[in-house]
Parts: sequence; C-alpha cells; structure tokens
Amino acid sequence: NGGGMNGTSTMMDFLEEPLPGVGTYEDFNTIDWVREKSRDRDRHREITNRSKESTWALLHSVSDAFSGWLLMLLIGLLAGSLAGLIDISAHWMTDLKEGVCLAGFWFNHEHCCWKSNTTFTDRDKCPEWKSWSQLILGHGEGAFAYILNYFMYVIWALMFSLLAVLLVKGFAPYACGSGIPEIKTILSGFIIRGYLGKWTLVIKTITLVLAVSSGLSLGKEGPLVHVACCCGNILCHLFTKYRKNEAKRREVLSAAAGGGGARGFWGALGGVLFSLEEVSYYFPLKTLWRSFFAALVAAFTLRSINPFGNSRLVLFYVEFHMPWHLLELVPFILLGIFGGLWGAFFIRSNIAWCRRRKTTQLGKYPVLEVFVVTAITAILAFPNEYTRMSTSELISELFNDCGILDSSQLCEYVNDFNSTKGDDLPDRAAGPGVYTAMWQLALALIMKVFITIFTFGMKVPSGLFIPSMAVGAIAGRQVGTAVTRSQSDLRRAVLAGGVTRMTVSLVVIMFELTGGLEYIVPLMAAAMTSKWVADAIGREGIYDAHIRLNGYPFLEAKEEFSHKTRAMDVMRPRKNDPPLTVITQDSMTVEDVETIVTKTTYSGYPVVVSRASQRLVGFVLRRDLIISIENARKKQDGIVSTSVICFTDYCPPLPPSSPSVLKLRSILDLSPFTVTDETPMEIVVDIFRKLGLRQCLVTHNGKLLGIITKKDVLKHIAQMANQDPNSILFN
Amino acid sequence: NGGGMNGTSTMMDFLEEPLPGVGTYEDFNTIDWVREKSRDRDRHREITNRSKESTWALLHSVSDAFSGWLLMLLIGLLAGSLAGLIDISAHWMTDLKEGVCLAGFWFNHEHCCWKSNTTFTDRDKCPEWKSWSQLILGHGEGAFAYILNYFMYVIWALMFSLLAVLLVKGFAPYACGSGIPEIKTILSGFIIRGYLGKWTLVIKTITLVLAVSSGLSLGKEGPLVHVACCCGNILCHLFTKYRKNEAKRREVLSAAAGGGGARGFWGALGGVLFSLEEVSYYFPLKTLWRSFFAALVAAFTLRSINPFGNSRLVLFYVEFHMPWHLLELVPFILLGIFGGLWGAFFIRSNIAWCRRRKTTQLGKYPVLEVFVVTAITAILAFPNEYTRMSTSELISELFNDCGILDSSQLCEYVNDFNSTKGDDLPDRAAGPGVYTAMWQLALALIMKVFITIFTFGMKVPSGLFIPSMAVGAIAGRQVGTAVTRSQSDLRRAVLAGGVTRMTVSLVVIMFELTGGLEYIVPLMAAAMTSKWVADAIGREGIYDAHIRLNGYPFLEAKEEFSHKTRAMDVMRPRKNDPPLTVITQDSMTVEDVETIVTKTTYSGYPVVVSRASQRLVGFVLRRDLIISIENARKKQDGIVSTSVICFTDYCPPLPPSSPSVLKLRSILDLSPFTVTDETPMEIVVDIFRKLGLRQCLVTHNGKLLGIITKKDVLKHIAQMANQDPNSILFN
Repeated sequence: NGGGMNGTSTMMDFLEEPLPGVGTYEDFNTIDWVREKSRDRDRHREITNRSKESTWALLHSVSDAFSGWLLMLLIGLLAGSLAGLIDISAHWMTDLKEGVCLAGFWFNHEHCCWKSNTTFTDRDKCPEWKSWSQLILGHGEGAFAYILNYFMYVIWALMFSLLAVLLVKGFAPYACGSGIPEIKTILSGFIIRGYLGKWTLVIKTITLVLAVSSGLSLGKEGPLVHVACCCGNILCHLFTKYRKNEAKRREVLSAAAGGGGARGFWGALGGVLFSLEEVSYYFPLKTLWRSFFAALVAAFTLRSINPFGNSRLVLFYVEFHMPWHLLELVPFILLGIFGGLWGAFFIRSNIAWCRRRKTTQLGKYPVLEVFVVTAITAILAFPNEYTRMSTSELISELFNDCGILDSSQLCEYVNDFNSTKGDDLPDRAAGPGVYTAMWQLALALIMKVFITIFTFGMKVPSGLFIPSMAVGAIAGRQVGTAVTRSQSDLRRAVLAGGVTRMTVSLVVIMFELTGGLEYIVPLMAAAMTSKWVADAIGREGIYDAHIRLNGYPFLEAKEEFSHKTRAMDVMRPRKNDPPLTVITQDSMTVEDVETIVTKTTYSGYPVVVSRASQRLVGFVLRRDLIISIENARKKQDGIVSTSVICFTDYCPPLPPSSPSVLKLRSILDLSPFTVTDETPMEIVVDIFRKLGLRQCLVTHNGKLLGIITKKDVLKHIAQMANQDPNSILFN
Repeated sequence: NGGGMNGTSTMMDFLEEPLPGVGTYEDFNTIDWVREKSRDRDRHREITNRSKESTWALLHSVSDAFSGWLLMLLIGLLAGSLAGLIDISAHWMTDLKEGVCLAGFWFNHEHCCWKSNTTFTDRDKCPEWKSWSQLILGHGEGAFAYILNYFMYVIWALMFSLLAVLLVKGFAPYACGSGIPEIKTILSGFIIRGYLGKWTLVIKTITLVLAVSSGLSLGKEGPLVHVACCCGNILCHLFTKYRKNEAKRREVLSAAAGGGGARGFWGALGGVLFSLEEVSYYFPLKTLWRSFFAALVAAFTLRSINPFGNSRLVLFYVEFHMPWHLLELVPFILLGIFGGLWGAFFIRSNIAWCRRRKTTQLGKYPVLEVFVVTAITAILAFPNEYTRMSTSELISELFNDCGILDSSQLCEYVNDFNSTKGDDLPDRAAGPGVYTAMWQLALALIMKVFITIFTFGMKVPSGLFIPSMAVGAIAGRQVGTAVTRSQSDLRRAVLAGGVTRMTVSLVVIMFELTGGLEYIVPLMAAAMTSKWVADAIGREGIYDAHIRLNGYPFLEAKEEFSHKTRAMDVMRPRKNDPPLTVITQDSMTVEDVETIVTKTTYSGYPVVVSRASQRLVGFVLRRDLIISIENARKKQDGIVSTSVICFTDYCPPLPPSSPSVLKLRSILDLSPFTVTDETPMEIVVDIFRKLGLRQCLVTHNGKLLGIITKKDVLKHIAQMANQDPNSILFN
C-alpha cells in the first residue's frame, strides 16, 4: 500500500527535517512555547546522543553548550559600542546647536576647551569655542547676537528632529518610541517581523542621536534597550540553536534587554533586574547569569569607548556625609507623593493624548507634529538656562554640591568667611542668584511636565527615564532649598520623586547613580510612597498602558485575575452559536477538510474520534494542515479530493477501489491542553501565563465542548476590568 | 426531602466555612498550590466586595492590603534582633574558651581591652583580660601554662558542643543542620510540621551560638536563614491572611529567607537574590520588593544592636587600588579550578559520609559523634594559630593588608626603609615569619578541608558559607604569596575560590564583603571557572544533594527534564496492574466508598460518569471524603451504609423506600488537571513544576486511563537520571 509507505516516510521526514513552513509562524501571531521548548529539547537530546559517536560530534556538543556565552559576549560588545557611539555623537550634536569648535569641528564644547588654559570657573568660555553669533557677527554680546543664537538653536533643533522623523517614516517605522511595550509583547511570545531587524537597528541608532540632540524632552535609556535587543536578535542568526527556535531566541533577547542601559557594575545589575522585573516574560534563572555577563561586557565596552561620558551623563555621583534625622522623612515622603501624582498624571495625560492621535486626523501628520513640538520646545527652552542645556547636564547641575568657590547661580549664597563654622555652610543666607534660579527651575519644571506628555509617543525614538528623573530632580532641589536653606540635606531626595513606578531595579540604578548608600531609608520611603500613590490612582505602568492602547496580545504575568468566572463563560462556541468546528480522526475526505479550512479562519482545529462521541484525540494547526495537503496533492500519488484523511496510527481498511489514504498523524498534536468547563478562569489564566499556551480545549465529563484561545482570554480580562468599578478611576 | 435540604446547607457551609479539617493537609504531604491560591483569591474577592458596604469593612480591606508590609517589618525586626543576639553571644563565648575578662565576665576579649591603655600592636594583650593559665596559675608562660590553656580550650569546646547536641536531641531535632534543604522542600509545597515552629526557633538560636562557639568548622549563615524563616512562620499566625493559607505563607517564607543573612545594603540585596536563586520555589515579583524590605529592616536592626560586629564578622573590607593585568587572570583561573574541584570533592565526600551515617550504626550515636569530632577539632586546632582563632577572625586576618607597621606574622617582610619606592612595598623580601605562616596555613587548609566534611550534617546547627570561604581564602592567600611575593595583587582573589556553586547572589555578597568593584573581571573569571569545573564533575549543589539523600519530594525547578518518555510510561496503573480505582458519580453507596477508602491508601480518587464509559467528572480527596462521610453519619439523618453517594447537581430519582442520598458535590474538585497519554514527560514535569500540582489524570481519546502523582514524577526523574550514563561520574 503506497499510502502506508508514504505515511512512514512523512513521519521520518518530520523527525529529521519538517516540511518547509511546518512549525513556523506567521507575522502577528503568538508562538507556542510548549512546542518550541520541546523542539529545543529534542535538538539538545540529539546532539548529546551523537556526541558519543565521534570526537567531532563531541566538539560540536561542547561548542553548542558554550554558544550562549559567546553570543552574550558578542551582544555585549556590539550593544556597548553602539551606546558609546550614540553618547559621543549626541554630545557633539547637542553642542552644535550653540556653536562650533575652531580647533576642529568634530570636538564638542567640553573637549574643545580641554587643552585651553582657562581657569576652572571659566572652563566653558575658551577662545577655541565659538557660539554662532561669535562666528557670524564676530562678537557674542548684545540683543542681535542673542537673537541670532536663539535662531540658530531653533533651526538646528528643527533640522535634527525633522531628519529623525523623516528617516523613521521612510525607512523603519518600527524605530519610533521607546520600543519597550513592543519588546515586552515580543518576549511574551508574539511575532512582529522586522521589529528587531537590521533596518530598525540602523535607523534607530541614527535617529536616536538626532532626537536627543534636537533638545526634545526625551531620554535615550528606553531606546537603548531596543537597540540592544536588535543586536541580540541579529546576532542570533549566527547560531542555529537560537536562529531556529523562537523560545530560545526570546531567552537571548531577555538577557540582551538587561545590557541596554548598563553603565558600570551596579548599572549592569540594575539593568538585569530591570529586564527581570519590567521587560521579560520567561526568564529562567540561568539567563540571569548570562544577562549579567552581557550587561557587564556592554558596560566595559561603553567605558572604554567613551571614558568621559560618565562624568556628565550618568554617574551623578553625590557624596552624602551628613546623617539624616527622622524628621527629614517628611519632605521625602512629600516628594514621594509628588512623584506618585506626577506619575499617574503623566500616564493618564499621555495615554489620552496618544489615543487622540490614534483616533483623529492628528495621526496622519507625524512630521508636522514633530515640527510643531520641536519648535515649541526649542522656543521655550532657549531663554531659560536650565532648559537650554541638555537634560542630563541639567540633572548633573542639580546634583552639584555648593562649595564655597562654586560659580553656579544656584550656589550664590552670602559667604561669611568670618563665621566660625568653617566649611559646613549650614546657615549661609541665600543670595539673589538662588531666588532667580528657583524661579527659572519652577518654569523649567512646568515646561518639562507638559512638553513630555506630548513628546512621548511621537514618531521619533524617545525614552522616559531621563525626563522623569529631571522632573524629580527639579522638584527635589526646590523642596531641598525651601526646607533647609543650606541645601545639603535634601539633595539626595531629588532622585526618588522622578521615578513613577518604582521597582527594585530602579532603586539599584539610583544607588549606582548617586552612590548614597547612607540614605537608603529616606530614599526607600520616598520611592515607596511614590509607588503607593501611583498604584492607588491607577494600577497600570506606562508601558502596560501603551501595550493596551496598541491592543497587543500581552498577558500580564504580574497582575492576578480575580473574577469569579469559569471556563464555560469564556469558551467558544457561546450558547446559541453553531457547534465547534471539529475534524474527525478517520472519516473526513481531503475535500471536507479543505472546505472547513476555507470556510473558517481559526488557526487550528480539534480532532475527535467521531462527531457523535466528541471524544478528543488531538489538535491540528491550520497552517500545518494547508501545507501538508498542498504538498501531498503535488507530490504524493493517488491523493485526490475524495481521499480519506486519517489521523490514527492504523487506518480503517477501505474498499480496494477507493483512493489512497492521506496519513497526517505526524502533524497532529497528540497532547493538546484541556480544562473542564467548570475550571475557574483564574486557573485558566494562570495556565495560559505559566505555560505560554496559544489555545486550550474545554471538556465536560470527557466530551469536547469548546475552545479558549489567548485572544479570548485577553478579551475576557479587558471586559472584566471594564466592569470593575475600581478601574473607573483610571479610565 | 431532608437530604436535599442538608445538601444545600452543606454547600452553604462550605462556602462560608468548610468542615473543620476539610482543606487542610496532613504532615509530610504536598500542598495543592492551585487550590490554595484559589482560596486566597476567593478571600480577597470577598473582602473587596464587602469593602463597599461599610467604612469598617473598607478599613479592614486597607489593613489587609498592608498587612504584608507590616509582617515584613516585624520579621525584619525579629530576625535582625536574633542575628545580633547570636553575634554578640557567639563572640563572647568563643573568647571564653581562651580566658575571661576581669573587668566583667560578660565582656569579650575585644571589649575588655577597649578602654585599656595599650599600644595598637599590643591591643590583644591588656591586663584586664586573663587567659585561663593566668587566672589559675597566676602566669601565662611556660609549658604547663600552655597545657592548661590547651586543656581548658578543649574542655570548653566539648561542653559547648555537647550541650548543643543534647538540646537538639532532647527538644528540637529539627534544629540541626543548616536547614536550607528542608526549607527549599517546604517552600516547594511540602508540609513538615514543627520545622519552622517556636521550639525549633528557640533551640536553634541557642544551639547555634553553642555550636559556633565550640570552634567546630561550621558557619552561621545557613542556620540564620532557618531562624529567619521560623520568625516568618511564627509571625504569620498574627494575620489570618497568612495563617490559613499555605501558599501565601510560603510567599512570606521566601521573603523572610532573604532577610536571614542580610548585613548592610548589598548584603540585603544579596540575601534576596540568594532566596530567589537558591531557596525559593514560587517567588512572584511583588515578593521581591517585600523581601528586600524585610532584609533591609533586618540589616539595620542588626547594625543597631551590634554596631561593631561588622568589623570582624562580615565586612572584610579590602581596598584595591592597583589595576590588574591580563596575565594575572591565570592565577585567578587556577584558583577557580581549585574552587570547583574542592566543591565537587566536598559534596561527594560529605554525601558519602552522610549516607554512611544514615545506613550504619553510626547514626544511632549522634552525641558520641559530636563529642569525637569536637575533640579532634579542638585538639588539632589549638596548636595552630590560624585554626585556634574563630573562622571569621581567620578570614579577616587573611584579608588584612600588610602595612609597614603590621605586627602579624604574615606580614614579616624585611623592611628596607632606605628604598626609594616608599610605601608601595612591592618587592620586599619575605621574612622567616612569612614562611612559618605559610606552613601553618597549609596545615590549616588540610585540616579545614577534611574536618568540614565530617562536621556538616552532624546533629548541631551548621552552615557552610564561612568554612568554604575560609578554605578559599587560605588557598587564595597561598597562591597570592607564592605568585607575587608582595601579596597585594592577589588578595582579592582569596574569596572567589571558596564558593563552590557560584551564583549571582554570591558574587553580589562578595562585593559587599570586599568592596572591590574594580576587580569584577578577575573575580568573575575565577567564579565562573569554579562553577564550570564543579558542574562538569557533578551537577548537583550541596543542598540538592542533601534533599535527594533525605528523599524529600522536591521537584527541581531549574534542571530541565530531557528524556523522551511519555505520560503513559509513568502513569499508574502500569500494564498488567489492576485497573485504576475510581468512584462513580451517582451509583455507589456509602459502604462501597468506605470499602474503597479502607482497602486503598491513595490520597484521592477520580470520579467518573460510569465504570463502563470511564468519562472523567472530577477528583475527590481521600481526607475530605473520610471527614464528610463521618460527619454525615453523625449529624445527618437517614445516612446509612446503603445510602447512595451522589456527586452530581441533580441526583437520579430513587425508589421511596431507599435511604436518603448523601450529596457530596461540594467536596468534588470539578477541574482536575488532565493530560493525554501521549504527552511527553518533559511537558508533564513542566506542568507539575509551574502549576505546583499534586496529581494529574491521564486520558486517552477522552477516556480516563490513569493517574500521575508528584511522587511518580520524582521517582521517574530519579530512575531516568540513574540510567543516564552522564550521571555516573557523580554517583
């Protein structure tokens, strides 16, 4: 019997190398974690078994085991190099808005003045560095020079941001935003082709530099995570182990995400915790180590490329020597409340604005939108010293301790050198400069708060960490100056308020940034207050809110589903619907199945013993079914429309005149997941989350009743959340 | 109909408050995570719903939400206080072996000499502190004084250790060992009554002090984790939310475990990571925050109780100023290899010895064993300066930098004050003291290596962290001194070798201890080499090895099951066995069921539609069944042996003469987990791990075939591991 032979060979083929296409996924579909992991285990088993046969195979097995580490090393090197490149370019182009270096146009302001013999206080005013007015008019004083500088500042900003948005629009639409909501979704098992591809990487790297340099109120931490994930995804192609397996590749991406923003040791640790807490979905503990390794390699690469970058951009090192008192907790907690309110306000406003952009005409003019927002930002920013400088410079300025010799406006205290108190400076009176600075900072705060709402979500790469830290730092400095005029007590607090959804990882990053281990208690008090306040107002973080806004099929692993519904309430078919579409195991013809596939759009069908008994045998995927039937029709003799399709091991004998049987047992999943109709939905949700299912069949007393897909689960969760009176506050 | 009424009221009762005993577990049984979590969600839902009704209920709901944080605060305070108490007492009693303070017997050596006006080099020799020979003979010199001191040292050691073992044996047998294997098992869902109880806490605290003071080669880090978990478990009784729910209580215990060994900020972080990596089974991310909080509270409490404890016991702060060179990696990697070999050797020898103790007469004389080991330890330890001091003092001595004025033997270099090189001391010749010290250290290393194998596993509290760190530190110092005579380059390395199964948490703890952030690359190189070497020899860590030795039902969450077996190969009944014992849904009498319960010992029974169809309805637990039938026989009218038991909603009509029906739908689990007989065991193992199942039913084409319990899974894994040729190395 030809059919039998063919069936065996198909099965052999499947074990060796499946039909092209069988076992892959289409774009915007969810992967089957269970199947992917099984496939990897099969692969591993095979390599281990073969390794006993020859030395070559043994070497292959060893290199396979170490390929994960090698991959991490490569990711760390590439991501770190790109981060360094971005740092240097953004620094240079930010300064380009104000002027140019005559010693070489490729020097930024700081480098330009390096070798110049200026005093410490005049370190920013070396002769080699020319502002645009100095270059064009020959002098830098007067109203006209000011206006010229103002004009050049706005023009450069507009040029940078327009170039960024045009590049994004023309070459890589996926390069916009922070990328973290999409990466979360991808890591949870969704397929978005090209999101982590070569073009996205190239365009995101370039446009990130442009967007940061344009002075828009955005940061580069989130996009750097996206860049690191792109590196991870691209480098996965070097190793078959990771190229061919969607689950294994996601392990690598989770690890790579940790390496994105890593600067220094604690930055690396913080990055890994960030990936663990915020980004990753499936994070086996062995990944922890690899992620940490990749983050460290990235941090060291970054440091060796841009050794001075830290001085301004991240290591806002503050030394705290004074002990803190219990009463000081009050302003800290106030800052925490401010942080929580600002976080909740920001998320709500930003989501409302993004929804408006999505649903109205506004979304059709992304270039115009970027133009307008950049113009407003630049025009408002230039007159105010604290908004004109880049956000990271601002933060580092705010962190600065006021020494007696400090020339900054913020430190204009009346120095009383006859005081017996010496260097402690606890009670010096504030000079006029301090009051001016406070006014300017207040204006800067208001501007940052509002402009960030409109900036985050535009079609340019944009992160949130630096802007929200800036808001926190300004508020902290204000409170610090108001409460204790000497300012030295509350500076540390400037940080905590900025973080809207606080997490262990962020506190670790904070400590990296500040080095203020002494102040853990006040910092934690501020951070926890901030979190509780924000949670009380709305439970969703900004990334989850954006995931929901975009309708990505993301099943939140942290939130517990707490409604008392059962599987029967969620499964399809609903009451009064036509019955579930099933395929029988040995009585349908090729034509019958083709009709079912054409008439329905489900991505898979349950296979049952017979329609009458409804006893479940297995589950077959639409894609596999179509490919297999097409293939059989082309290549297998005697397969016609009236051929019976048989999913069993031994097919029932047919009359000799009937056409050959098409055996499809090899594509049948013999272990579909089932639950009973009485199973509480909270358990079903748990199963979907923990096992990463795509669908689950529902039975009652052993009979197949219906099916629940991941989309049904998500829809049900959204529906229940809308009914929940507690969520009204947020919506 | 009375039966119907009664059925309804039983059902009502179940919703409100189940029969006493229903829903609880017997000792040495596994909990049902799914059921426990469902129950907690029910509880939470009820509180949330009620909170809308009255202000009081709203307050209750808020306090319920914050009770977790309050509990963490209390655990941190209690665990930190106990750790401080243990520190101080152990320090005092360790010094008691050598002498006593005349200024007050309650002062330890260091405190005693505090106020005394001695020079820095003679800080250990103040007049107030009398060695035993000085006290008894009036002088401390000469052979007889030495022998007297020797004798007193051994006597005290024996007294302490005998008292410890007698207390453990008499009052709390669970207080012995490190406790970590058992805690891992408990956290994975096993019930061991009393393991985390009051008596264990009290006795473990006391005997830990005694065991540490006796000078045995053991540490207190592991037992402190047990102490913290006891605190957590006891304090859980204050809150119904945690008292009544085994799953919620395990969340608290996981968090408490992180607070056990926490000292300082990075210690707290390291502790949390340790709990996450090594101890915990179910660690939802919100627990991360709470755990961190508890660890911080514990660390601050400990510091405020024993502010000087750090100087000697944990904060071996080493400042590394010199950059390292690539060539220096070689000795680091050698140390890593040594560490890996020592780790594997230790685990194998210790397990072999513990197995011998379990299986031979040896295990019957725990007191004698402790007596002999203590005697040998004390007799061997006294003559050697480096073993006579406590292990933590030894480590801190080894970490000491050699300054020019240092009086220690290890630093006896020939000082050449005419050298132009100044303070760098790179090339001073080693004096005779250094050679003596190296010999003594070599002897100490050999002694520690062997004696620790016999010590870990005795019937006294014992941890492994400090002894294995000591071994690493001695080896590191030896290599450091041999390779670069100036010693300043390799000191940091002393740490890495000591850790046998390296983990991220331990590296974090290492950094806390050393502060040597500069040396992350060499440290990681040593640590990773160590891990790879140890993994190549035997995959199991010491805790897992002890779990296996003791036969605890622990399902390792990290190891992947990689054999190609299917559910049908593991399920019971096996081929040729009698068929599965089932209960039918509406045709068995009370007597039938009682017979089944008496004749079998299974902990639960599947309920089917009928024996002929074998269609699964649900699953009923033996314990619930027994309690319900007993209760009905006592309290419900008309329930006799011939009453039919009915698990359905609507019971079939019976002739009027028949006795009332016993309705038991309320105890039936309507959503038992099922898999098909073709499901690969790797997926079954995954389901058991991730969902925390106790049992899973196996079906084929919709018919019930068999059952797989957690014990079957564990047995199967052990069986497959024994067949695996790769595991021969270990066994």
